[in-house]
Amino acid sequence: MSGNAFGKLFTVTTWGESHGPAVGVVIDGCPPRIPLNEAVIQSMLDRRRPGGSVASTRRKEADRARILSGVFENMTTGTPIAIMIDNTDADSSAYRPFADVFRPGHGDISYQAKYGIRDWRGGGRASARETAARVAAGAVAARVLEREHISVRAYTVELGGIRADKRDFRAVDENRFFCPDPVAAEAMERRVREIKKQGDSLGGIVEILATGVPAGLGEPVFDKLDAELARALMSIGAVKGVEIGAGFESAAMLGSRHNDSISPEGFQSNNAGGILAGISNGDEIRVRAAVKPIPSIEKPQQTIDEDGTPRTLSVRGRHDISAIPRINVVCEAMVCLVLADHLLRQKAIQS
Amino acid sequence: MSGNAFGKLFTVTTWGESHGPAVGVVIDGCPPRIPLNEAVIQSMLDRRRPGGSVASTRRKEADRARILSGVFENMTTGTPIAIMIDNTDADSSAYRPFADVFRPGHGDISYQAKYGIRDWRGGGRASARETAARVAAGAVAARVLEREHISVRAYTVELGGIRADKRDFRAVDENRFFCPDPVAAEAMERRVREIKKQGDSLGGIVEILATGVPAGLGEPVFDKLDAELARALMSIGAVKGVEIGAGFESAAMLGSRHNDSISPEGFQSNNAGGILAGISNGDEIRVRAAVKPIPSIEKPQQTIDEDGTPRTLSVRGRHDISAIPRINVVCEAMVCLVLADHLLRQKAIQS
Amino acid sequence: MSGNAFGKLFTVTTWGESHGPAVGVVIDGCPPRIPLNEAVIQSMLDRRRPGGSVASTRRKEADRARILSGVFENMTTGTPIAIMIDNTDADSSAYRPFADVFRPGHGDISYQAKYGIRDWRGGGRASARETAARVAAGAVAARVLEREHISVRAYTVELGGIRADKRDFRAVDENRFFCPDPVAAEAMERRVREIKKQGDSLGGIVEILATGVPAGLGEPVFDKLDAELARALMSIGAVKGVEIGAGFESAAMLGSRHNDSISPEGFQSNNAGGILAGISNGDEIRVRAAVKPIPSIEKPQQTIDEDGTPRTLSVRGRHDISAIPRINVVCEAMVCLVLADHLLRQKAIQS
Amino acid sequence: MSGNAFGKLFTVTTWGESHGPAVGVVIDGCPPRIPLNEAVIQSMLDRRRPGGSVASTRRKEADRARILSGVFENMTTGTPIAIMIDNTDADSSAYRPFADVFRPGHGDISYQAKYGIRDWRGGGRASARETAARVAAGAVAARVLEREHISVRAYTVELGGIRADKRDFRAVDENRFFCPDPVAAEAMERRVREIKKQGDSLGGIVEILATGVPAGLGEPVFDKLDAELARALMSIGAVKGVEIGAGFESAAMLGSRHNDSISPEGFQSNNAGGILAGISNGDEIRVRAAVKPIPSIEKPQQTIDEDGTPRTLSVRGRHDISAIPRINVVCEAMVCLVLADHLLRQKAIQS
Repeated sequence: MSGNAFGKLFTVTTWGESHGPAVGVVIDGCPPRIPLNEAVIQSMLDRRRPGGSVASTRRKEADRARILSGVFENMTTGTPIAIMIDNTDADSSAYRPFADVFRPGHGDISYQAKYGIRDWRGGGRASARETAARVAAGAVAARVLEREHISVRAYTVELGGIRADKRDFRAVDENRFFCPDPVAAEAMERRVREIKKQGDSLGGIVEILATGVPAGLGEPVFDKLDAELARALMSIGAVKGVEIGAGFESAAMLGSRHNDSISPEGFQSNNAGGILAGISNGDEIRVRAAVKPIPSIEKPQQTIDEDGTPRTLSVRGRHDISAIPRINVVCEAMVCLVLADHLLRQKAIQS
Repeated sequence: MSGNAFGKLFTVTTWGESHGPAVGVVIDGCPPRIPLNEAVIQSMLDRRRPGGSVASTRRKEADRARILSGVFENMTTGTPIAIMIDNTDADSSAYRPFADVFRPGHGDISYQAKYGIRDWRGGGRASARETAARVAAGAVAARVLEREHISVRAYTVELGGIRADKRDFRAVDENRFFCPDPVAAEAMERRVREIKKQGDSLGGIVEILATGVPAGLGEPVFDKLDAELARALMSIGAVKGVEIGAGFESAAMLGSRHNDSISPEGFQSNNAGGILAGISNGDEIRVRAAVKPIPSIEKPQQTIDEDGTPRTLSVRGRHDISAIPRINVVCEAMVCLVLADHLLRQKAIQS
Repeated sequence: MSGNAFGKLFTVTTWGESHGPAVGVVIDGCPPRIPLNEAVIQSMLDRRRPGGSVASTRRKEADRARILSGVFENMTTGTPIAIMIDNTDADSSAYRPFADVFRPGHGDISYQAKYGIRDWRGGGRASARETAARVAAGAVAARVLEREHISVRAYTVELGGIRADKRDFRAVDENRFFCPDPVAAEAMERRVREIKKQGDSLGGIVEILATGVPAGLGEPVFDKLDAELARALMSIGAVKGVEIGAGFESAAMLGSRHNDSISPEGFQSNNAGGILAGISNGDEIRVRAAVKPIPSIEKPQQTIDEDGTPRTLSVRGRHDISAIPRINVVCEAMVCLVLADHLLRQKAIQS
Repeated sequence: MSGNAFGKLFTVTTWGESHGPAVGVVIDGCPPRIPLNEAVIQSMLDRRRPGGSVASTRRKEADRARILSGVFENMTTGTPIAIMIDNTDADSSAYRPFADVFRPGHGDISYQAKYGIRDWRGGGRASARETAARVAAGAVAARVLEREHISVRAYTVELGGIRADKRDFRAVDENRFFCPDPVAAEAMERRVREIKKQGDSLGGIVEILATGVPAGLGEPVFDKLDAELARALMSIGAVKGVEIGAGFESAAMLGSRHNDSISPEGFQSNNAGGILAGISNGDEIRVRAAVKPIPSIEKPQQTIDEDGTPRTLSVRGRHDISAIPRINVVCEAMVCLVLADHLLRQKAIQS
């Protein structure tokens, strides 16, 4: 429970470094008799794969998930589900020049301060590679949710300053940014190509929508559903902000406008984002995560090495221009983990 | 651990309803031999007191904190510190008309869905009254941090759409909004008076600054320091968004601008907000919380009662116009709790 | 979670020192809509009261339990239940002479080593007084179990070397040792009077029987139901050993005799004590706890003070001759807490 | 955290079934910069290997431990240490006849009741094979303890009713039962051969001794060091009882005899077993675990199948006659895990 585990009843523990032999996850607390096989996990994992977008790295990660325990004859047994993904295309040599340098925007300097040692190969534990394990776990959580008719979807609503004005969900899978606004998607494409030439990188905003969530999930006070979602999303390396429903816009709204009126047919608006007092209210849950630009850029940057000597750094190599869209499925996985956990927690107190 | 506890090593559990006999907190894990008495707790609690601002309710809460255990001869002993605050001015009769109505923007409807029962008097457990217990715990955490020369301060950077452009910390205690911009504070005052007349309410943004935090606090992956801060702040009822450092603005920045360059003298900027890869980097930690407008307003609102019958609701009574500035010290307390917990966690692995 | 909390879903946190203003407990995770009032708690607490037996101290503890939260109109609401018991008859002056002495068999020396400070008044946090809070919580757990037709009962099977040969449960409430063997109970009475004259003290064995426990409670591997029961009982200060079913006698049995045969009517014996591979099998759960003699005795003992100077100690005052029978209801409470917690945990994974 | 994880700060999560592809463990919370390689783990694992004793099965388990993460250049990095052990010699066909039968003394019937599904191959998750993962984790914990000069050793003090009267630790590694009494060891050997011929099995008692433990480890109330040790040992499948220091004999002792007198040189006896009020007192920690006879025996037993039909069962195959001595190193590992966890917990509160 030292930071690598998540969830109270549906508990996942991830392990692995970017350039070690593998990354993996142990899921403890998955209910028994849920249909599960490697293909289900693989299909969610494939959405995280680089190369699906011009914004993504050219590294070819096989990302082949193997289930090592907890599943018998294609059904979960209630015992821990261990999933392992080998690191097959890990080339550490490219990182050798940075072995003693603190790359700006990376955890090199903070890991060194914390532990006095760090695996510098590809960011080690702080690498985005770790999120492959989260996605594998999220795929299992999604199966648990599916049984209760809950579905979760992440999509891009901003990239490089370009906002999606529409929410046309049919469009999401028809562009490489998983953007629900086809016109914005085209502008994003142009923006990415332009920035790539400059050797720079871009940030953006991902929105995650959960539908079918029954009222009553979430615990009072500290484990409010929105608090748990905030933690879950902010635990993704590149995320710098999280908001629910009207989010930061709430700050400038009047109470009379922010309050969601209730009629016999349901809520008349959803500024709450589907959560009241930390507990789901039966409406759609809508959260957004602000994603910072990828810190590894070709443009030269000023930094220091472990001895405090100034260094100029230019990171070439196989890096994404933006964490979006690969990060989307990671956000989706994290929301699935939170909802699956709270679904089980709520079952525990129901009579 | 069903939602009313927070922290792994410095663990606080709060209890109590708005109109029950008392609210309180048990702190389990406070290190021994830290000087502590009721006055220290009281002085932090007093900053949460209503009446300090035109934006606040007229309810007179004595909020007298009593230490019931864990302190011996004005020193902590290492055993649980129980603190209790009596509810002395709780008048439930004002809530009787809403006993079977779901107030918009409140947790009435979600609590009813979750538990099938709720203490409707003053919002029960979902009342902001619960935060008194958090502040009491935060005061203890602040003493733990003080010993390590860490200090935390919350202040108002936006209220009713009016932004503070300056960060003049000497001004914070000189206006009733704890705003570091005296000119903005005056505009806030006017805005509050105007909205009060309309029977409406306001939201805003609180910023929390932690200085003196050593590099190395925070755990990798799920218990990243920013993830824990996000959860902590989002667990406050009125908060709808949290951001760290450049936050949502990161989404539109280029990597070359967002990355904080490092020189032998330290970081050249602080878009990271003092946290890299989830671990403090030694710089100031800066987070912001978006606060929604108070849902209890005099303006009539549409809602339903427990039978689904439409009702029109106008909430008169002793309600704040805005959760700001009373919420500020709650935000401060939550940040103190997170930092104290991670300080202890880091000590555990140091040799 | 620093040692003063117990249970994963039905979580109790106790607080309080022997001679502070009060002891108490917060129960987080109790399901909603369970009938509860102070009388229910009081009646379990009264069974822990001193004076019910010649083996017990003459200290008059009022032990009046007050419910401060989590109950509304005599029903649990799902929010934390805080219960407080004032320390009304606490006379610290009797402990003044031992303020700087380490009493043999007590935690004085280990608390001092751990914390560098200790509340020496009546044993402080290490006092048996703390168990009043456990019993209050156990009373709530018992109500949760009652709804599922599970009942738990503790009784004395050995005291001062005298064993109960019979299990006549009607006799349990008819003697002051809660012993199911009336003849043994009389011998115990004589033994206690004799030892009392000698200024010495006695140990014994408590057996706890849980009936109506459905098959399926307990988690594999580390949270086996018997492991949790062992921890629960060994966490009571005076307990030095715990065994399940045939317990230590299992060590000398052959497999053919130890294995409980199964017929269509059920198990043919119960050497397992109702638990197989850590999971309840539907049979009665039977555990025993070995209780050491009370360490506070009038007979002179050799020890040292905080400076390491040898001291001879004779503890006069209001001390029990044996922790039995007052400890029985504490054992019962701990078993209730374990079962209630695992009942909720099992509900979480059931579909 | 659903039963497959152990420890608060030094947290281990095990996974894997007897006849799945592998078993493994993730250690989260190991301090950084502790020298570690696979050989260290292997040497502890080898002590669990079958074939070292006539009491053990002939199954050839390679038990080759691989470190997959958390170690860089032979040092721990502070990130999760994943260790995997392939199941190379798993022959499931021998278990096919028992696929729908509940073997007496096994968890078949309770797992089926709990989950409604079970991996019947070799006991699945309930198999003793799972303990290989615990031993691997224990080897890492032992390195953490070694740095603080704490050492832990398990040895056999009873087998098949034959008790070791001596504690000659030089003898422990010179007989196949790890028994500190050479004469008793010879009698054990004869007893095992005799029972093997009868197609029956034996139980026994393991004692674990921890030396060098500083005073101050263990938390008050529920996480007492003895409570944690009791849980740890009782979580091993075959263990039916646990006692500390004088243990069950305490029940018949007088207080004047049980109390350990203290002189300036230290404790004059150790009936407490090194723990007072749940906190280590600086003396040797001594605990014992009662081990039931192996339930898989050749002698015919009565049971039922999943339909409730009576069946007669005779388990042939590669089964041990006694869990001792293979279980000894598992007991040792569990004690190491408890001590390592509490060592870190104590560091957290020290200033």
